[in-house]
Amino acid sequence: MEPRSRCAAPGGVSVSAVLPAGGSGERLGGATPKQFCAVQGRPLVSYAVRAMERISWISDIIVVVSPENIETMKTIIEKYGHKRVTVVKGGITRHRSIFNGLKVFAENEFSSHLLQKPEVVIIHDAVRPFVEEDIVSKVVMAAKEHGAAGAIRPLVSTVIASATDGCLDHSLERARYRASEMPQAFLFDIIYEAYQQCTDYDLDYGTECLHLALKYCKTNAKLVEGTADLWKVTYKRDLYAAESIIKDNLSQQVCVITSGKETLAQVGFLLPESLKSQIKVEAISISPSKNDSRLQSIISGQCYNFVCVNDKRCAIQETQELVDMLEKSNIALLYPVVLISVYLDISENNSFSIGVEDLSTIKKFARETKKKNILVYGLLIQYK
Amino acid sequence: MEPRSRCAAPGGVSVSAVLPAGGSGERLGGATPKQFCAVQGRPLVSYAVRAMERISWISDIIVVVSPENIETMKTIIEKYGHKRVTVVKGGITRHRSIFNGLKVFAENEFSSHLLQKPEVVIIHDAVRPFVEEDIVSKVVMAAKEHGAAGAIRPLVSTVIASATDGCLDHSLERARYRASEMPQAFLFDIIYEAYQQCTDYDLDYGTECLHLALKYCKTNAKLVEGTADLWKVTYKRDLYAAESIIKDNLSQQVCVITSGKETLAQVGFLLPESLKSQIKVEAISISPSKNDSRLQSIISGQCYNFVCVNDKRCAIQETQELVDMLEKSNIALLYPVVLISVYLDISENNSFSIGVEDLSTIKKFARETKKKNILVYGLLIQYK
Repeated sequence: MEPRSRCAAPGGVSVSAVLPAGGSGERLGGATPKQFCAVQGRPLVSYAVRAMERISWISDIIVVVSPENIETMKTIIEKYGHKRVTVVKGGITRHRSIFNGLKVFAENEFSSHLLQKPEVVIIHDAVRPFVEEDIVSKVVMAAKEHGAAGAIRPLVSTVIASATDGCLDHSLERARYRASEMPQAFLFDIIYEAYQQCTDYDLDYGTECLHLALKYCKTNAKLVEGTADLWKVTYKRDLYAAESIIKDNLSQQVCVITSGKETLAQVGFLLPESLKSQIKVEAISISPSKNDSRLQSIISGQCYNFVCVNDKRCAIQETQELVDMLEKSNIALLYPVVLISVYLDISENNSFSIGVEDLSTIKKFARETKKKNILVYGLLIQYK
Repeated sequence: MEPRSRCAAPGGVSVSAVLPAGGSGERLGGATPKQFCAVQGRPLVSYAVRAMERISWISDIIVVVSPENIETMKTIIEKYGHKRVTVVKGGITRHRSIFNGLKVFAENEFSSHLLQKPEVVIIHDAVRPFVEEDIVSKVVMAAKEHGAAGAIRPLVSTVIASATDGCLDHSLERARYRASEMPQAFLFDIIYEAYQQCTDYDLDYGTECLHLALKYCKTNAKLVEGTADLWKVTYKRDLYAAESIIKDNLSQQVCVITSGKETLAQVGFLLPESLKSQIKVEAISISPSKNDSRLQSIISGQCYNFVCVNDKRCAIQETQELVDMLEKSNIALLYPVVLISVYLDISENNSFSIGVEDLSTIKKFARETKKKNILVYGLLIQYK
């Protein structure tokens, strides 16, 4: 895939991201660290990387993994065609891993691939697969203005402090507190300064980057209300939840493509109209052979399925071109893509105008694309 | 179902439970309050009631629902055959609802069904379906000793306090704090006193029963580490997670029943041995027609499927008896029960000894039981 043209970040700043993915996943109760657990056949970390990668104004994505998982991570990047990703060796704690990730932009230690220092750096967890551009953008904007910013959520449970005897000492008033979630963003110089200043105790026992910015740089982070889907995959049940959410998304978006002819344009209007109460629909009127930028952005963006409406006798060629584009984009590696090729027959001839030969061509084509995780279906509609 | 003989509670105290189920479920994002959302076809609240009901030493289970859901709740109790349950009208907040639930044991206002006041009362959420007897027992024991007790879990996210300008004020050291979960338990007189003393502000804005016991009765609750499955269904993703956990449980427990004969006893030993690495197996050697107490406790307990091994020519009668027991226990209302009837043919006769007539009898029987959510399969094994 060609690198996409980089759009300007919110506020015009340069932005990169660090994803700590060094956790051992002990709370999950399995041998595989949670970021490498497969959800719908694909490791969780790949979803998080993809979420960052989809945001065109993020320059570099640094994934920090423990030394024993570096090869695993590189294999994942190759297999799922991730771009703009650098894998960095993590430390023994979360803060040490993030610090290592930041050093890639600042220290000669990593000089073989010293990356350009961004004005704002995003820190996001590898185990939060559903982050949307909207919240990332808000956090980046707030970081530009305040020096630091982080997504927050209401507390689900009351938080309590225990005394040394294992009894309740006091409980916190739930409404006054928030759960600190991800993504967070910082002016690079602030968070890097904080990590350079902070004590070994902070590096070993701390968990909160916003706290470091406050303690060492007197920067009070702006708190940004996030959405429920920012939650962190922590327990096995969270993997189930993530899987169900991904399955739901897969089946709920469709792109209807029609060529510009009048009859087809009408179908291209009516079909999305009738679908839109059920499913998220994008409709574009363009031959898929054209290098349409909207189609390109759809293909490289969300999880879409496709309905191609055409009136050519056997539209294998156009379908083939769309399949080629999908293949190049690597999205079919990430999830199965359904492509319904609709042949709208508007001829006066009443008989079926697709013969056995055409059918077997389509079938053969569908068999081939199925191996690439693209499921092609043909549909003949007689329309008079 | 006959009421089961009540076992003694831990510590010999009398125990009842109050389940607040009055929430509106606004965080779930749907019209149905989460406690009434169906998981595998059955409302979440029914799982929580069932979890309490399975604990034989809990005398009464008070479910507190908002006025508009009283009929819904009564229908659920009837449909799923719940016993020992009293439905009480809730207040406008969680604390007011719990208070109403407690009043059933203490005030004449509810005199038509004034229930016997327990020494210890459990408070548990209707939206925590997976609570096990072990943790309930621990919390009750601790409440007996300390006056109050509650399950806790480690914090998943760092907790922070925001200043009035929406910026970070301070973050809490995660290791020093815990999430307060359910179940909780109290000496009845303590929690009832606390509710009687507490202010309208507490009743309207508070969320934590342990806090009331501390503030109004100087009782520092004992905190008991709970398991991950105590979590509260809060968001839509939690419903997905709950569903997956229930599905997993459904398919992972089997009870092998064999009659006492020697050949069958051998199978009854070997089959569980070979299954036990895959699935949780209970094996009992008894004719299902006998009113065996172990079989009774299995049927009224967890989600088991059944394999019945016998050597009678056509064992419909024994299978019928087991089906009758399952029907009486109402468990097939709660989830589908798979019952595999294995006919072990040890005769010298080499030919298939089940004729078309027998087959059609079994098929007809299976069709009937399927309507009752009991899925009967027949298996013929020739064994020499």
